[in-house]
Amino acid sequence: MIPFKIFSGSSHPNLAASIAQGLNKELSPITIKHFACGETYIKFDESFRGQDVFLVQTCRTGHMNDDMMELFLMIDAARQSFARNIHVIMPYFAYSRQDKIHEAREGISAKLFADLIVKAGADHVIALHLHSDQTQGFFDVPVDNLNPRRIFVDYFAAKNLKNAVIVSPDAGGAKMAKKFADELGVSMCILHKQRPEHNVSEVSHVIGDVKGKSPIIVDDMVDTGGSVVAAKAALLTAGADDEIYLCATHPIFSGPAIERLSGADFKEIVCTDSLPVENCPTNFKAISIAPLLADVVQNVVEQKSVSKLYI
Amino acid sequence: MIPFKIFSGSSHPNLAASIAQGLNKELSPITIKHFACGETYIKFDESFRGQDVFLVQTCRTGHMNDDMMELFLMIDAARQSFARNIHVIMPYFAYSRQDKIHEAREGISAKLFADLIVKAGADHVIALHLHSDQTQGFFDVPVDNLNPRRIFVDYFAAKNLKNAVIVSPDAGGAKMAKKFADELGVSMCILHKQRPEHNVSEVSHVIGDVKGKSPIIVDDMVDTGGSVVAAKAALLTAGADDEIYLCATHPIFSGPAIERLSGADFKEIVCTDSLPVENCPTNFKAISIAPLLADVVQNVVEQKSVSKLYI
Amino acid sequence: MIPFKIFSGSSHPNLAASIAQGLNKELSPITIKHFACGETYIKFDESFRGQDVFLVQTCRTGHMNDDMMELFLMIDAARQSFARNIHVIMPYFAYSRQDKIHEAREGISAKLFADLIVKAGADHVIALHLHSDQTQGFFDVPVDNLNPRRIFVDYFAAKNLKNAVIVSPDAGGAKMAKKFADELGVSMCILHKQRPEHNVSEVSHVIGDVKGKSPIIVDDMVDTGGSVVAAKAALLTAGADDEIYLCATHPIFSGPAIERLSGADFKEIVCTDSLPVENCPTNFKAISIAPLLADVVQNVVEQKSVSKLYI
Amino acid sequence: MIPFKIFSGSSHPNLAASIAQGLNKELSPITIKHFACGETYIKFDESFRGQDVFLVQTCRTGHMNDDMMELFLMIDAARQSFARNIHVIMPYFAYSRQDKIHEAREGISAKLFADLIVKAGADHVIALHLHSDQTQGFFDVPVDNLNPRRIFVDYFAAKNLKNAVIVSPDAGGAKMAKKFADELGVSMCILHKQRPEHNVSEVSHVIGDVKGKSPIIVDDMVDTGGSVVAAKAALLTAGADDEIYLCATHPIFSGPAIERLSGADFKEIVCTDSLPVENCPTNFKAISIAPLLADVVQNVVEQKSVSKLYI
Amino acid sequence: MIPFKIFSGSSHPNLAASIAQGLNKELSPITIKHFACGETYIKFDESFRGQDVFLVQTCRTGHMNDDMMELFLMIDAARQSFARNIHVIMPYFAYSRQDKIHEAREGISAKLFADLIVKAGADHVIALHLHSDQTQGFFDVPVDNLNPRRIFVDYFAAKNLKNAVIVSPDAGGAKMAKKFADELGVSMCILHKQRPEHNVSEVSHVIGDVKGKSPIIVDDMVDTGGSVVAAKAALLTAGADDEIYLCATHPIFSGPAIERLSGADFKEIVCTDSLPVENCPTNFKAISIAPLLADVVQNVVEQKSVSKLYI
Amino acid sequence: MIPFKIFSGSSHPNLAASIAQGLNKELSPITIKHFACGETYIKFDESFRGQDVFLVQTCRTGHMNDDMMELFLMIDAARQSFARNIHVIMPYFAYSRQDKIHEAREGISAKLFADLIVKAGADHVIALHLHSDQTQGFFDVPVDNLNPRRIFVDYFAAKNLKNAVIVSPDAGGAKMAKKFADELGVSMCILHKQRPEHNVSEVSHVIGDVKGKSPIIVDDMVDTGGSVVAAKAALLTAGADDEIYLCATHPIFSGPAIERLSGADFKEIVCTDSLPVENCPTNFKAISIAPLLADVVQNVVEQKSVSKLYI
Repeated sequence: MIPFKIFSGSSHPNLAASIAQGLNKELSPITIKHFACGETYIKFDESFRGQDVFLVQTCRTGHMNDDMMELFLMIDAARQSFARNIHVIMPYFAYSRQDKIHEAREGISAKLFADLIVKAGADHVIALHLHSDQTQGFFDVPVDNLNPRRIFVDYFAAKNLKNAVIVSPDAGGAKMAKKFADELGVSMCILHKQRPEHNVSEVSHVIGDVKGKSPIIVDDMVDTGGSVVAAKAALLTAGADDEIYLCATHPIFSGPAIERLSGADFKEIVCTDSLPVENCPTNFKAISIAPLLADVVQNVVEQKSVSKLYI
Repeated sequence: MIPFKIFSGSSHPNLAASIAQGLNKELSPITIKHFACGETYIKFDESFRGQDVFLVQTCRTGHMNDDMMELFLMIDAARQSFARNIHVIMPYFAYSRQDKIHEAREGISAKLFADLIVKAGADHVIALHLHSDQTQGFFDVPVDNLNPRRIFVDYFAAKNLKNAVIVSPDAGGAKMAKKFADELGVSMCILHKQRPEHNVSEVSHVIGDVKGKSPIIVDDMVDTGGSVVAAKAALLTAGADDEIYLCATHPIFSGPAIERLSGADFKEIVCTDSLPVENCPTNFKAISIAPLLADVVQNVVEQKSVSKLYI
Repeated sequence: MIPFKIFSGSSHPNLAASIAQGLNKELSPITIKHFACGETYIKFDESFRGQDVFLVQTCRTGHMNDDMMELFLMIDAARQSFARNIHVIMPYFAYSRQDKIHEAREGISAKLFADLIVKAGADHVIALHLHSDQTQGFFDVPVDNLNPRRIFVDYFAAKNLKNAVIVSPDAGGAKMAKKFADELGVSMCILHKQRPEHNVSEVSHVIGDVKGKSPIIVDDMVDTGGSVVAAKAALLTAGADDEIYLCATHPIFSGPAIERLSGADFKEIVCTDSLPVENCPTNFKAISIAPLLADVVQNVVEQKSVSKLYI
Repeated sequence: MIPFKIFSGSSHPNLAASIAQGLNKELSPITIKHFACGETYIKFDESFRGQDVFLVQTCRTGHMNDDMMELFLMIDAARQSFARNIHVIMPYFAYSRQDKIHEAREGISAKLFADLIVKAGADHVIALHLHSDQTQGFFDVPVDNLNPRRIFVDYFAAKNLKNAVIVSPDAGGAKMAKKFADELGVSMCILHKQRPEHNVSEVSHVIGDVKGKSPIIVDDMVDTGGSVVAAKAALLTAGADDEIYLCATHPIFSGPAIERLSGADFKEIVCTDSLPVENCPTNFKAISIAPLLADVVQNVVEQKSVSKLYI
Repeated sequence: MIPFKIFSGSSHPNLAASIAQGLNKELSPITIKHFACGETYIKFDESFRGQDVFLVQTCRTGHMNDDMMELFLMIDAARQSFARNIHVIMPYFAYSRQDKIHEAREGISAKLFADLIVKAGADHVIALHLHSDQTQGFFDVPVDNLNPRRIFVDYFAAKNLKNAVIVSPDAGGAKMAKKFADELGVSMCILHKQRPEHNVSEVSHVIGDVKGKSPIIVDDMVDTGGSVVAAKAALLTAGADDEIYLCATHPIFSGPAIERLSGADFKEIVCTDSLPVENCPTNFKAISIAPLLADVVQNVVEQKSVSKLYI
Repeated sequence: MIPFKIFSGSSHPNLAASIAQGLNKELSPITIKHFACGETYIKFDESFRGQDVFLVQTCRTGHMNDDMMELFLMIDAARQSFARNIHVIMPYFAYSRQDKIHEAREGISAKLFADLIVKAGADHVIALHLHSDQTQGFFDVPVDNLNPRRIFVDYFAAKNLKNAVIVSPDAGGAKMAKKFADELGVSMCILHKQRPEHNVSEVSHVIGDVKGKSPIIVDDMVDTGGSVVAAKAALLTAGADDEIYLCATHPIFSGPAIERLSGADFKEIVCTDSLPVENCPTNFKAISIAPLLADVVQNVVEQKSVSKLYI
């Protein structure tokens, strides 16, 4: 087994601690502080010359710029300190939706930050449910892009829902919804909506049959909650059963999300703990991905294939 | 205006000639030959020191490896010959479907060839309807990813079809179908299919309403034709009108495609000329993208924005 | 003259506008917004294919991480949009004090961000009074490192101070103080202090003669103000005249700085406007560097030497 | 010993199997298939995280473009799959004769493909008798360029030929012929020919004495066979004995080669198995380089010097 | 422990031998010769496939160009010969004073040679007292920048000098002098001089109190000796005791240095053996850094932290 | 025409001046000096922002290390000073014979210095008769490799020698000799020699007929003169006429060359002025390449093809 250490950035120490615990290890000590002027300062408090290091850092809602900058600094300090290989565990990769040019004279932010992470010195990235699978290819180093779908499918299968239907809140998510429906062995439908501008959404109508069915809305993330709340309304209008589930990997929960979700009265909101959530609604359920990530780390340091974990 | 020359690879000289014609230019002379052993040999027959060069090369069905190798050689020879900027016009980018890792221990071929094109010396790539928009980000140089949707929408709008419906043959194409439907001002549906293995497809059922409607199946490419032929059958079963259109950007037409398409009796098969087609079915209609590509070249050499051409 | 456009990031629009004004130009329009989740979004609202762009972005106290991330995004979008050359005007370069490894297992943050700025796509950097001159060499592109010392020297020369003495608040600033003293034609001294930990400072004694003299404390930046306030006390103890000036390029003014400086009763606090200052003390005087920066831009686009401006 | 696996591309599986056998190993399983459209698909069927991989791929006559593309894809997939070091064993490197610019506005193809192999991810290349020794320097990774001359010399020494003379069919091969002659302890001569255009050759006269001697024509490759057949005629004209041997490393045998060689009635045609040969002439003798390549692999994984094997 | 070998360039074989001895090893054999035309030729005489190599090369006064070129050649040969990691031990790094642009249209030579050393293939650099600490950041690989100050402080502490004072010969060295003074527990002063042009120096006056004290002039290097000899004169004029010590890391001793230093009658001239010295003055004392460098190598190959050795 | 300036390094100012003269220009002023310690210092004394610069530097016998280092420094300073394109004119490229690995654990020095010249910042190299044509491919930028053969052929054609024969002093030069012979319309022969170790040579016998003929020995360079003097002896022994010419591009003339050549009594020794020659033999004739190089520069700045000049 390759000797290694795990360090946590300041974005999600609980998740990092759970990963370490899953490996029967302690997080290794690191100093992260901010000078009075606001600059971030990083210093590893243990040597790891010739060892592999795993750096756990997600991108928190409202703090992704600080978290990304802190990550760059952690990688650089690890590289200057003679780490053998630097593995970045980034459960939520901010800017991942800016993965193409939507309008002239924009950049491709997801590619930019992939490039900067590699330039800083990362040798390998472990990500979770990237917004598009193609984002893997933005990194010039190998990426393990884990998918929590199986965890969710197991969770809903155990509920033995009668008459469930998987719902994609928009056309872009139809492919993911289809896989989910196939694995759960139920039917699917998609919602056809107009989104006149950023962060504002409006559902038009349902494509497919939901009458009397119990919908599970699936998406890769819940951001402001607008589209899923509108989806719920459209589903009810279309005759769906009123026990509606929401299932999304990343609980971004930005701006009015908490308020909207609280008001929407979902049967349950099921996410992972890829991001820390504050003031979460009472019907919010976070399924931890720490065991999955610990398994990946274990396989990496034992130089075994991780493929069975994510496909 | 920047002085420039256009050269054609051997994959699609007719398209290259049409682009040049649209710019009131001649294609510049180039020697492309093959030695007895099969090696490709490239020599530009005119100097372009300090000028921009545009290299037109698509990837023909069954010959993409030769076409890609020829492109590498053309780029290298242009770079060694002091071109100011090397623009690659690649109407169909082979391997673009291998844009993520589907299974363990595969590569990401689209990213690989993007990297090799840039390493060979390309400064700018002009592509057409890449399989995923994210593929833009695989190139370390700017990419203009043109979309022919407007051309198709205009074409079908002129037909004044009563009761048309846009059909995506699978969940992955739902997003594209939605844009098409919105611009044409009609409704959409998607087909839910099982594809047990590569190049074999099986349509299960229609999500959305097609009864008595006139379907236009839209996709980015037609490869073996299996899925679109199966889609046609499923649409008829679901009660669609029997005048069914097929509209796809790239006429790959590989293996049994010509036979299948000929047998399927579509009302019309509408594609671009991004690829040369031999033995095309009688109901095949290729709308040329040469005017669009000529416009892009014109704007590039006049240093104007090309954004209005592709968004 | 090379055609060019100037764009301002959100860190210091007033300075950017002044630079543009000095060039008889308008700032070109750019959209900078933040999504609900906090991600920064950049879009240039005018084409500049084949033109040079100048991006003005400083690093504000307490907001340098956001400002640096915004800069990366601006550079990337400019590169994707076919800028001919991308010039970054960065009046204050955050993290510039972390320009070497002070303790084991730290990184070299200034080098890291220099690398990331270049990786994002910058072709040229215009900086002001970098913390160490060697920081120029961290960039793999040419850097114009302007020094405002002449502006300050002219300012103090015009005051005709009798018996002035230049004071370096610590040993590290002795070299800069010496140049200042030489150009103003007065003597210098340095303060010998103990700084037990970060952001805490303690002056011990004065090396050199200040009795009855009028001190001008010079430094490259005022951060928390601790060391300069302590310096003032030490100078008074050593018999200096009580009209004490403070002159520093970068008004960081972090944490307790405003309070400390207000309480310290300097005769005048003279800085540049490299950073925007809020709630500045009444005796604060900001000399604008916009004319200097406009001159540099003018020379760059006229392809003249800028050397006379900064040595 | 470094743990490793050997995989064969589709160009020369017999040679790859022989190398593996020489190492008492099996070739590891790999899926190589072609989609209906003609795209190559690669998937390794065993994990090799943290191990070295050796990829055996030659460049077959008439199929070098496919073989080279397949090699790029194999290297990329190996890199994405966390190989520790990727060693390419390429017995015949196509395009190696295009190692300089012969005419204006050509490229340097050998350098181009060396660059692309390295960009794809190769860490080390094991080649055999590159057309020019300088080609080693085209790769930015170390290259072991093996020479089979000793194998040939041993082979001919065992024949105890009376009065042998080594013949270089052109001036460019004189250096190689000299080494061969020195090691075999015989004299040499060179042929002086005119080659008016590519693939057409014409021998003029013999420089050196061949009267009554038994010539061994040596070259690095036999392509169309034109020059060696013409050489034979010139040698006979010059009075050489009519038992003439042909000895060349790479049996390219393109175009009319088989027919020409069959008609030329050489005493023996001795090559290596660097390339698979179909329909070979009856007097063709292929000496396998598998033992040599197996030795190199063995030394590499035991981290021993391989120098004694190729100098 | 990582297996490794140490090789010496031709610049300072005695130091290299001492380092090896401190590790209970022999220097490994290397052939370094010069062809009649003057080209340097390098060949390692032992294999080190898969091992780490340490290359010891300083930059001798008057021969730094040859030494630097020889180093490039050694690194390249080590890389071509499959070294696992290449560590460069460079006790004196020539051109380190050209670490910024002093005047327009100069280069940054220290950065240039840092780049070339890394391009040649170095993975790690072990340096001693670089002229500026920031020079670490010029290398794109990790640098251990050792400081011999503790060795000097111990040496002077053992002398129990009464009334010592640390003297910086110019403002630029004030920071280093302060650390020295703090660690030795004595006071410091700086000299304020005019240096009208390169290699000519002129001391003006002393800032701080030296009356009746025993000065130790400290600097990073002694080049022509001009400034330290002038410093000695200024100190005497200012009333210092006449037992004046000179302490500098690098004994460059160029041009008139030996003569000047011999005439200056210092109590002692204390340097390291980072450079070989010929015809050294009788009061010259070289403290060897071989034990320090051997410790660093030992820790590197045992993959332990080296931080305690240089901070 | 692209605006440009020409600067001369210190290796061959006369040649640089002749090139400039051929362009009706002056050499632009540059400061090259050496500090007392031996470091080289470079400063351009005129601005060339946005202009092309041509840097003329050869590699003098015995001083190639200094000349190469000076070249690196010139390129870096030009890059830092915003040159548009940096063209290196290097008439003799030292280390060009070390263009492959002759023995284990050597480097490939020609490739190394090609890489370092490009890393320093060169955009284009103009070379003369590189030792192997493949050396072009070592540079990652375009190389114009000029060949002076036509100049020599014209020179000898004008002599109307009766019965001339071109002689290659060894097998490696046979290819060059053949071209020379073909263009001059005469026959050729090669010498078969043993060279037991570096710089020692021994001719064995002549391959081809020289009886009563007037030999012209052609080679790319004359180094110590050993092999050409031995060649002369062998030719006389073989019955050649005693008016023997020596024709070589690069007059290295190292070690015993002048003495040997003076004693050898050649009819004429004809070289170019690619290197400055001191104490040249009385029968030495240097044909200047300045007109050829001036033509190349002229074509480059007029963006015309230079191909007719070197093929």
